[in-house]
Amino acid sequence: MDIKGIAEEVCKKTGVETTGRDVEKVLSGLTSSSHFWEVVCTAREPFSVVAEVVEVLKRTRLVKVDEQGDIYFTPEGMKFLKSRGITPRKDYTCPACEGRGIGLEKLKELVQKFDEVTADRPKAIIDYDQGFVTTRTVVSRIALMADRGDLEGKKLLVLGDDDLVSIAAGLSGMPAEVVVMEIDDRLVEYINDKATKLGLPVKAIKYDFREKLPDEYVGYFDTFTTDPPETLEALEVCMGRGLTGLSGEGCAGYFGLTRTEASLKKWNLFQQMLVDKFKVAITDIIDDFNHYVNWDYLLGSIRDDYSFVQVKPRLNWYRSSMYRIETLSGFKGMENKSMPCELYIDQEALIYRPGQM
Amino acid sequence: MDIKGIAEEVCKKTGVETTGRDVEKVLSGLTSSSHFWEVVCTAREPFSVVAEVVEVLKRTRLVKVDEQGDIYFTPEGMKFLKSRGITPRKDYTCPACEGRGIGLEKLKELVQKFDEVTADRPKAIIDYDQGFVTTRTVVSRIALMADRGDLEGKKLLVLGDDDLVSIAAGLSGMPAEVVVMEIDDRLVEYINDKATKLGLPVKAIKYDFREKLPDEYVGYFDTFTTDPPETLEALEVCMGRGLTGLSGEGCAGYFGLTRTEASLKKWNLFQQMLVDKFKVAITDIIDDFNHYVNWDYLLGSIRDDYSFVQVKPRLNWYRSSMYRIETLSGFKGMENKSMPCELYIDQEALIYRPGQM
Ligand SMILES: [Fe+2]
Ligand SMILES: [Fe+2]
Repeated sequence: MDIKGIAEEVCKKTGVETTGRDVEKVLSGLTSSSHFWEVVCTAREPFSVVAEVVEVLKRTRLVKVDEQGDIYFTPEGMKFLKSRGITPRKDYTCPACEGRGIGLEKLKELVQKFDEVTADRPKAIIDYDQGFVTTRTVVSRIALMADRGDLEGKKLLVLGDDDLVSIAAGLSGMPAEVVVMEIDDRLVEYINDKATKLGLPVKAIKYDFREKLPDEYVGYFDTFTTDPPETLEALEVCMGRGLTGLSGEGCAGYFGLTRTEASLKKWNLFQQMLVDKFKVAITDIIDDFNHYVNWDYLLGSIRDDYSFVQVKPRLNWYRSSMYRIETLSGFKGMENKSMPCELYIDQEALIYRPGQM
Repeated sequence: MDIKGIAEEVCKKTGVETTGRDVEKVLSGLTSSSHFWEVVCTAREPFSVVAEVVEVLKRTRLVKVDEQGDIYFTPEGMKFLKSRGITPRKDYTCPACEGRGIGLEKLKELVQKFDEVTADRPKAIIDYDQGFVTTRTVVSRIALMADRGDLEGKKLLVLGDDDLVSIAAGLSGMPAEVVVMEIDDRLVEYINDKATKLGLPVKAIKYDFREKLPDEYVGYFDTFTTDPPETLEALEVCMGRGLTGLSGEGCAGYFGLTRTEASLKKWNLFQQMLVDKFKVAITDIIDDFNHYVNWDYLLGSIRDDYSFVQVKPRLNWYRSSMYRIETLSGFKGMENKSMPCELYIDQEALIYRPGQM
């Protein structure tokens, strides 16, 4: 079987558009690592695509999977790589900033303080697809917003905050006001407690983004930040809510988008939505900006039919690109009414939910 | 006059959509630097907008311009800043990678070799709006393409190459083949000479991108890189040529886009073109990735009516964001025929050309 053939089979099985180059990226990832989650991380391909590529390679005996779930090329596999000119991925990520382009030298105190203050944070739970980012990521988000002039003296809306961006923002002393809208009662309470104890200008309220935005917050903020679920429907509602919260043109929104749960086809459709429908400009897309701390429920929530997938991750493999958008004159939010939408079920999703297509 | 009023006046004078936030960014830039070119660099606003904001501030005596062309706030200016809550820009750029997220530790030899080999490079000339990037920038481009799997063993098209990306790529030993299409005879000859002397897999041919792509190169390449003129027309033709050169889905294109010669309104229109018309996904937008070496003809080519503008730059102030796009199935290039288009004249352009709107 050649690379094109693998791509076609994977496409048929996953329903995700897959090119020969996508397959090459998985193969290239496998030449540097035998660990499934590391390959997902470096290949920047949807989870389901990586899993099916490995499965096809296994079936055609180009790779073998050992008892620990590690994946190795067979001698035929090696020949296959060589004949197709597949080489290991070159990694030129800046080690100082983990590739974000943002330095934290001036924010060492904030890093330390954030860790101290949030040591007792609530655990990530499956109910809301939670999974929070590393401290370096959180503080880099604060630095990025500040660097772009979107934080100091500004009013910040945090739509969903298992990452505790609000606390980091409050501790930085920069924003005038931070409002968190969050569905999880544990987090609402936790954030409000910390804010009171520490005297931060931060307030959390319970909110499900499928509901309309509280009227007093329509057009109220300078900046929003969120980490949306990655179905197109959820992306649309989430952007709509964030933009509806902004006060006018020249405001900014920040959010993560993965390559693991969103194919580039979905990226394209989402980008069309941003630039055509919402009339914003995309000013930054920073690859692998957000690093997520491994969460406990992963292996119980995903497919259990492939042994190489049911392996405990050895690195913080789940990453996302950081988007920054800026509103232009004539930008649009959405009608401020409740909007039921599918949050998690999607052929590109990581989590397996029974009844899923 | 308040900030909104300044924005309206600037908008009227420049024809460039300008928000209160745009004016704030210029004000914020002026609190950290009295040097016009540094403010253009940090404010990330169109050249003409920065110039007109400063002019309005000068006329209303919020700033003074000294004999050297340096710009200072007057006491009223200071009061104005304070009452509007304008603070200096926070800069959190990673110093190790100059904010690119790309580390050059593994490519030190290439950096040195490139400098040696290109010490006798042709000077930037106004005829083709030239201005080349720093060595760190060039090598970071090579590293970025390699990191994303778009260089090693691949065929690279360089559309216009005063930056000498082709030589850096050749010296890296990674690409299978590099073809440069370049309008400037001096560069065509220079690149071919170096390639022959050094035995690099690089070939330059004379080409004006308003002409059709040579037939043998339609659908030939894996990757293209270019540094397009920033009128919408030129951007469209340039992307069309690059994409027409690519062999199919899963290929990549790289190019710079400034905030100095393209407003966010133009960014939005250009992004619509990319995602709707050309059907590609934008995978990366890396702010201030490209740093240009100051070119000799600058002050003679721009407006001479404002003294603070006619000042020799004290830093490499001209920057651009690096875009990476990836082709999807169904992506489109353009019809392969010649296409006259306006390259440089545009209300957002830096260079002043008599007869310009
Ligand atoms: Fe860095
Ligand atoms: Fe150039």
